[in-house]
Amino acid sequence: MSKLKRNERIGAIVKILCDSPNKVFTLNYFTNMFNSAKSTISEDLVIVKKIMEELSLGKVVTIAGAAGGAKFVPMMGKEDKINLIEQICNDIKKPERIMPGNYLYMADILYNPAYTKGIGDIFAEKFSDDHNYIDYVLTVETKGIPIAMMTARGLNVPLVIVRHENKVTEGSKISINYISGSTGNLSTMYISKNAIKKDSNVLIVDDFMKAGGTAKGMMQLVKELDCRVAGVCVLLETVTPSKKLVDAYLSLIKYEDIDDQGEIIVHPNYENL
Amino acid sequence: MSKLKRNERIGAIVKILCDSPNKVFTLNYFTNMFNSAKSTISEDLVIVKKIMEELSLGKVVTIAGAAGGAKFVPMMGKEDKINLIEQICNDIKKPERIMPGNYLYMADILYNPAYTKGIGDIFAEKFSDDHNYIDYVLTVETKGIPIAMMTARGLNVPLVIVRHENKVTEGSKISINYISGSTGNLSTMYISKNAIKKDSNVLIVDDFMKAGGTAKGMMQLVKELDCRVAGVCVLLETVTPSKKLVDAYLSLIKYEDIDDQGEIIVHPNYENL
Repeated sequence: MSKLKRNERIGAIVKILCDSPNKVFTLNYFTNMFNSAKSTISEDLVIVKKIMEELSLGKVVTIAGAAGGAKFVPMMGKEDKINLIEQICNDIKKPERIMPGNYLYMADILYNPAYTKGIGDIFAEKFSDDHNYIDYVLTVETKGIPIAMMTARGLNVPLVIVRHENKVTEGSKISINYISGSTGNLSTMYISKNAIKKDSNVLIVDDFMKAGGTAKGMMQLVKELDCRVAGVCVLLETVTPSKKLVDAYLSLIKYEDIDDQGEIIVHPNYENL
Repeated sequence: MSKLKRNERIGAIVKILCDSPNKVFTLNYFTNMFNSAKSTISEDLVIVKKIMEELSLGKVVTIAGAAGGAKFVPMMGKEDKINLIEQICNDIKKPERIMPGNYLYMADILYNPAYTKGIGDIFAEKFSDDHNYIDYVLTVETKGIPIAMMTARGLNVPLVIVRHENKVTEGSKISINYISGSTGNLSTMYISKNAIKKDSNVLIVDDFMKAGGTAKGMMQLVKELDCRVAGVCVLLETVTPSKKLVDAYLSLIKYEDIDDQGEIIVHPNYENL
């Protein structure tokens, strides 16, 4: 390959860093790839860092020292976050979502790649600082999986999925019984014993929180595995009940109700954006 | 914002295009963002296109005409694909994966963000050409969801998840009964009636195929919805039975068996890489 120009190297560096958020690439990785001096790559990285910050496209962290290098950390501008969550709220408001029993059909939103990556990036950004290191993202099947996967990708950590059934293909399990806040039913959750190493920091991600029974169940599983809950993130919480079974959690959308005119009252939770 | 230099614009364009694969961004989008002339942005895009192709980082397609612009299409170099799938095969070979009944524990592989994005990109690349337009990616809960989500992201189309239970929160459904090739059990699959528009092209993605009963069931659901199956992609297929219930499918890994020494025999399906 012929030697690349600065603007070509910069294009390539951006692609490589952003494809693997929170993964450290050494200077050597790039000097070998581009057959360039370390000082040249360092200058490239300064420019990459500047563009990302100036255009609110993310953050590039450079790591000094022999094993130094750079990594990309997802970070959206406040305005972009608000735009995304307002767009999702407007989508939720479509009256055809209302189903018998006043349930809202949400699957198309929760599985829409245009939304899931942004949601995952918002959650990942909140837990990307070094004082708050995350080892795993945990969710429960099924509807929270896409946003949990995108959060795990943003943080560059494994995703673990809690199951509602005891599947033989997943080895020995720990199970707990919990009361679903939405339905009031007693249910069981299972997690593979080997899915999470002892003494890890676990970030819980789910699509929806009403009373918080499911999140509380996942918190219990984390404790059973001798790990710590680093945080609980949900896309959408219901305003009622205001007192949840979980003390600290972060939601991006607040769902109030369907009013007498059949309008769906939902709005961004601006304080978390 | 001060006017950006070419290398800064290029860094930003790469980030924006690669963040939303298969989404067309107009020239106007970039001219407004950078306060630059169309001719300048066109030149930038030529450079971006060249870097992506030269370094096998993907493909940038430029669209001519008034509504013209550019989009990024995931595309990995053959060597990178082989490296990724060989790495996954080596990970599968770890003897501690073997569980009672000779099942392999695979969840950590299927939920590992370092693997899922690459797998999704490989599937998306295969179905990214214009003669083969995909409207939806379809999978069945649970273990295939992360790779199906990444495929949907690569193609910029909605993901639809078939359920094993008839959930009230997902509206009216179509269901079919099918015989799981792995267990021989009769099971039921449900899909929301409104999840997929009539007359669409649907790409089926799943983690695993033994006899193909599950994939065949999903194909039947697609037909029930008056849609077409554009393809079936699985990460891993078993060599036995060699005759599957599905005629045409694409797998990336072939799983043979566990041999007398307890070694897991698995290898990349090179013809698809």
